Amino acid sequence: MLRIAALASACVLCAGVVLASSQPVPDQTAREKSFDAMIQPSEMGAWLKLLAAEPNHVGSPHDKANAEWVLAQFKSFGWDAHIETFQVLYPTPISETLELMGAKPYKATLQEPPIPGDTSATAKQPPLPAYVEYQGDGDVKAPLVYVNYGMQDDYKALERMGVSVKGKIVIARYGKGWRGLKPKLAQDHGAIGCLIYSDPADDGYAEDIVYPTGAERPPHGFQRGSVFDMPLYPGDPLTPGVGATADAKRLTRAQAAVILKIPVLPISYADAQVFLQTMTGNVVPGNWRGALPITYRVGPSNAAIHLAVKSDWSMKTLYDVIATLRGVTYPDQWVVRGNHRDGWVFGATDPLSGQIAMLEEAKALGQLEKQGWRPKRTIVYASWDGEEPGLLGSTEWAETHGTELKQKAVLYINSDSNARGFLSVGGSHDLEHFINQVASDVIDPETKVTVGERHRAKVRIDALAPDVKDEDKEKAKTAANPAKDFPLDALGSGSDYSTFIEHLGVPAMNIGYDGEGESDGVYHSRYDTYEHHSRFVDPGFVYSGVLAKTVGRMVLRLADTELPVERAQNFSDTMTSYLGQVKKLEGDKRKEAETQKGLLKDRAFQLAADPTKTSGVPTALNDVPKLNLAPLEKSIAHLTQSAKAYDTAFAAKSATLAPSARAKLWDAMQRLDQRLTSDVGLPGRPWYRNLIYAPGRFTGYGAKTLPGVREAIEDQRWSDAEKYAKLTADVLDAYSNGLDQATKILNGK
Amino acid sequence: MLRIAALASACVLCAGVVLASSQPVPDQTAREKSFDAMIQPSEMGAWLKLLAAEPNHVGSPHDKANAEWVLAQFKSFGWDAHIETFQVLYPTPISETLELMGAKPYKATLQEPPIPGDTSATAKQPPLPAYVEYQGDGDVKAPLVYVNYGMQDDYKALERMGVSVKGKIVIARYGKGWRGLKPKLAQDHGAIGCLIYSDPADDGYAEDIVYPTGAERPPHGFQRGSVFDMPLYPGDPLTPGVGATADAKRLTRAQAAVILKIPVLPISYADAQVFLQTMTGNVVPGNWRGALPITYRVGPSNAAIHLAVKSDWSMKTLYDVIATLRGVTYPDQWVVRGNHRDGWVFGATDPLSGQIAMLEEAKALGQLEKQGWRPKRTIVYASWDGEEPGLLGSTEWAETHGTELKQKAVLYINSDSNARGFLSVGGSHDLEHFINQVASDVIDPETKVTVGERHRAKVRIDALAPDVKDEDKEKAKTAANPAKDFPLDALGSGSDYSTFIEHLGVPAMNIGYDGEGESDGVYHSRYDTYEHHSRFVDPGFVYSGVLAKTVGRMVLRLADTELPVERAQNFSDTMTSYLGQVKKLEGDKRKEAETQKGLLKDRAFQLAADPTKTSGVPTALNDVPKLNLAPLEKSIAHLTQSAKAYDTAFAAKSATLAPSARAKLWDAMQRLDQRLTSDVGLPGRPWYRNLIYAPGRFTGYGAKTLPGVREAIEDQRWSDAEKYAKLTADVLDAYSNGLDQATKILNGK
Repeated sequence: MLRIAALASACVLCAGVVLASSQPVPDQTAREKSFDAMIQPSEMGAWLKLLAAEPNHVGSPHDKANAEWVLAQFKSFGWDAHIETFQVLYPTPISETLELMGAKPYKATLQEPPIPGDTSATAKQPPLPAYVEYQGDGDVKAPLVYVNYGMQDDYKALERMGVSVKGKIVIARYGKGWRGLKPKLAQDHGAIGCLIYSDPADDGYAEDIVYPTGAERPPHGFQRGSVFDMPLYPGDPLTPGVGATADAKRLTRAQAAVILKIPVLPISYADAQVFLQTMTGNVVPGNWRGALPITYRVGPSNAAIHLAVKSDWSMKTLYDVIATLRGVTYPDQWVVRGNHRDGWVFGATDPLSGQIAMLEEAKALGQLEKQGWRPKRTIVYASWDGEEPGLLGSTEWAETHGTELKQKAVLYINSDSNARGFLSVGGSHDLEHFINQVASDVIDPETKVTVGERHRAKVRIDALAPDVKDEDKEKAKTAANPAKDFPLDALGSGSDYSTFIEHLGVPAMNIGYDGEGESDGVYHSRYDTYEHHSRFVDPGFVYSGVLAKTVGRMVLRLADTELPVERAQNFSDTMTSYLGQVKKLEGDKRKEAETQKGLLKDRAFQLAADPTKTSGVPTALNDVPKLNLAPLEKSIAHLTQSAKAYDTAFAAKSATLAPSARAKLWDAMQRLDQRLTSDVGLPGRPWYRNLIYAPGRFTGYGAKTLPGVREAIEDQRWSDAEKYAKLTADVLDAYSNGLDQATKILNGK
Repeated sequence: MLRIAALASACVLCAGVVLASSQPVPDQTAREKSFDAMIQPSEMGAWLKLLAAEPNHVGSPHDKANAEWVLAQFKSFGWDAHIETFQVLYPTPISETLELMGAKPYKATLQEPPIPGDTSATAKQPPLPAYVEYQGDGDVKAPLVYVNYGMQDDYKALERMGVSVKGKIVIARYGKGWRGLKPKLAQDHGAIGCLIYSDPADDGYAEDIVYPTGAERPPHGFQRGSVFDMPLYPGDPLTPGVGATADAKRLTRAQAAVILKIPVLPISYADAQVFLQTMTGNVVPGNWRGALPITYRVGPSNAAIHLAVKSDWSMKTLYDVIATLRGVTYPDQWVVRGNHRDGWVFGATDPLSGQIAMLEEAKALGQLEKQGWRPKRTIVYASWDGEEPGLLGSTEWAETHGTELKQKAVLYINSDSNARGFLSVGGSHDLEHFINQVASDVIDPETKVTVGERHRAKVRIDALAPDVKDEDKEKAKTAANPAKDFPLDALGSGSDYSTFIEHLGVPAMNIGYDGEGESDGVYHSRYDTYEHHSRFVDPGFVYSGVLAKTVGRMVLRLADTELPVERAQNFSDTMTSYLGQVKKLEGDKRKEAETQKGLLKDRAFQLAADPTKTSGVPTALNDVPKLNLAPLEKSIAHLTQSAKAYDTAFAAKSATLAPSARAKLWDAMQRLDQRLTSDVGLPGRPWYRNLIYAPGRFTGYGAKTLPGVREAIEDQRWSDAEKYAKLTADVLDAYSNGLDQATKILNGK
């Protein structure tokens, strides 16, 4: 409720700021119109076909060929471009075995058969079988235990069921969190191997008709991917924090804590059904059930499983393509934009649907330049390699050029897979207003309203669903008010923005369209082909075009604006709302611990259990002390004041600022977001230096905001909670002080 | 929170009242101990085997034979017993057809095959095929539409999907509400036929291993049942409000609004899968998915369905067995207890597991009498016929003897199916304390704590589930406090208590054990056999014994107590809590209407829809005016005062009351609950006269409390809401006035 009230009082100012900051000036409008006219979906489709013609994962010939082709494209568009290489640890499979032993033996297929009617998937034998990057080689035999999604809550439920995974192989279904957490948590709980499968409830026939008739995952499709411990650090496992250049100092493989110790394989639901049918033990709780036509039981299996994986752990080369349009006025202020190029197998949707949008933007920007336009700021475009194994290409580049990026980067704009549907955007909240303005100028081809208006409708309708979260209800309320900016999601991890925002502190935005095109059904399978993409995900490549128009506007406006585009109150309102969530979390945790204490005292878990079934009692929670979050509260109060003062001053004064003051103002604002980082980093994972935004230690993809405090409360680390309340307050105060400086400049002091 | 606070302040009084009311006096304790010793599970098991040996539905030879056998048992136990017959409309199937037409025709099996290893299910060819009572005969051909559970919310979702069932046959899955509402709502929406099937997600392999290896519904099992419009009135469709005696004045079949107009058949999930696989149209929302290995789509089917049902609509005879132990002191005060005897096919769990407990109680009471004990009050036991088609036996008997029952009945105690597990009890809230006392004196055989303590543990652990309702959290809080009574559920419908409490106003209690024995998996199928029951539902018939001990105590205490057992504050606290719910409902509805208005204005439904899919816009909700619920609030404040005064006076004065005053007090309290009825009845369904408790018009089984007001708000009938706020206030005031009279008697005025 605080957030709403604060936004309401701030609204009067919006219009003024808008005009002053990111609204196009007349010739900018004309330029954007020209830009739009250059976006040609059919051209993008042809590029997609070419790029997705062969498997293009790290180390494949087509990955390198694509890099060279992309380089040539940039050059032909008039960009200054080069390929930058890195040497990274990237294992590839040598051999793998997965079999059910016992009376009814079964050998898992571990292969995706060709699909009739899909040229790509028919013609090419994929060089990568079922495999996940950075699992730990091994050869193990043990019974199987089903662990649902294999996340923290699932292990709590297992404890209630009286089931241990120690010495067992676990089978987890995909979903609910970062893939790599599943084997990691299994390993932490004593499991000696892990299978991950796509359950048709989440990813298969339950969702829609399967490929090739429909778009969803067919029975023998499986999801490749990386299972390294991304929430510890992304990038090359051997070079955390530094670029994986040829001469970089490297960890040994054994020293790289992000690499798992246990063997892991991904399998299809056709295979998984055979293994799951061998389970004995308790029937699973309702929310553990998938959509296979079986009774899901927790296990152990009635026969042992044999799992063996052996990999070639040699180094491979990454090919990042870096292209530049040099700014004429402020060449040392960079607008950076990237999208990865490597896929699993053909990678048509993921990532090439975003890659072609980026290339189309580059083409159009190049044409504008040929027509005489010159960007004031330097524009840097990056076609990343090695995102799939763990954001390698972007991380190594950003780590290599970290000092320069911290000096020069204005914003990093990322995209990845793209599909028909709704604008989906997350990023730094002081840029929330900026993206709102852009979204109000791009037309959705299906509905002919702006993509911003359509996004608002989606947020509001989604909030009608049963059991929707309070924060999503709040977002819907905000989205319903056209005088307010629609809220931006916070960034977690899972694509190439991570190092920019979370390690360097450079503000970032991740943007794409989705929600209608059926892109998930072939995710990381050999069926993510040109045919699938053009039939089901984005027919006519229309939404790759919409993405190009959206990002193109962001780049054009940022490259040429004379004034900072930040709106401080969007950030302060969001922080106020996060603080409310953290305080509520503290109260909820306290209540939970008190309730559990009473239940344990009264033996309620035992009495409510069916004595004919295995059951256990949960580990007692710690009492929750009254936490001292006062420093954080104080700093957010400070931020609220500073933000209001800045926005007010900006609205009143920015339009009439003298050029020298404008330059000072820009300088004060450009590195402001970097103040949100601390060299201490997050507990146990110092690579993550941003104290406002991080991927959750136990969610991986999903963001945790105010992570030092929030995760400490979640994990019952009370002293960390108070320590990080102080550290987070310090970075917020630093941000507020930076704002105050900028306000002074605006006010001519 | 109000409820909690009120209960807390009342607690100090509890102990005193307890001793004075329902706690056993020394020889009563001894008598209960003797009673317990007479409960012999093996004897009950033998009876169950006999009663379940042949199909025993209304009109079957074994139904009559069972009545005669039960009659003989009562007589042998020393009871005065007779069979009372009624003539009711009870259709039986002549012919039925269900087939898929078009290119790939398929004929549904409509039969449950024998199960190897189950003697009953192997040996007997059930005389009843797939059939539901009181469907409307017909012969129709049309495409099929899937309507999820076929409840009100599902039709709202269909509207959003832009799908109409007009002129179609619908297929609904079992669950979420009274079976009869599914075809009724289909009919109301213009459908011309209805199939109801058991989805394995709710009732089959998703829940546990299927029969005969496990307890759950096998692929060809289906659920028979009644589909008449029970929320309009139960009992013989031709004699609403009066007993279906031979000479009763009857409606014609066409006049009986409870009988459906469209043909309906229940089918198995093996059959359903064939039909559901033919669906085209939108993929269903996530909460519409079942557990069949298919993509659930809303339809229509790609071929027409042919559905035809023809029935014999002749009258049949019901055989209620009524047995009496005459009271020596207060012969005109009756403790009434019943359980139905008719099943679908063999009916081992439903209803015979409860029937044998009742018979065992009767045996033990008879033995106590033979040993010299004489009940002060008259005890009436009833073995009901025709519950399955629509509570026929109990309703016709209660309607026939309504005047006498209103004069004499102290309490009606009901049971039905019984299984291993936890005490489950609902009923009149002024008896909440009474059942708490009984539950604290019966030991659970699995855990050796009292069934009350185990019930509390279950309520508390269940409240840990995600997305638990606020009211269940409140119940868990109350259950966690041993100084408070655990809360009693409110009664809806679905068993033989309905006419007593909801038509006559006689207080009632429905009691049983469940939650561990797997009783639902064969519900209303031919597999509900002695073998299934004794293997999976209640091995050793132990919990039939626990039920007998629980109800036996209730009967013994009620038969002999000199003082009323009501505790008024349990009732007033519950009413306060219901009032809070109704006021919250009003607020929620207002908010919902406002939100929807904004969404419609902004075309958000259209903009959030995928244009490649069929979609629709919901019907606009009416604005919610500020409702005048003041009369209801005032009456509940009055009730709160009166209840406190009564309980206080009772605690202080009842033990020392002179016999004449005691008699006056009993007289004042015995018919108190009947004051909660009104001759006006509920809107559109005057048979339901209780204005506090009713089955929901659109839930059927589930209770709606303060139904005149609550359902009016739910259905946007604002003037009804205010009218019933007044009417409900009147009955609550009448109750309070009755309490005030009793308080005066206690205080010697």
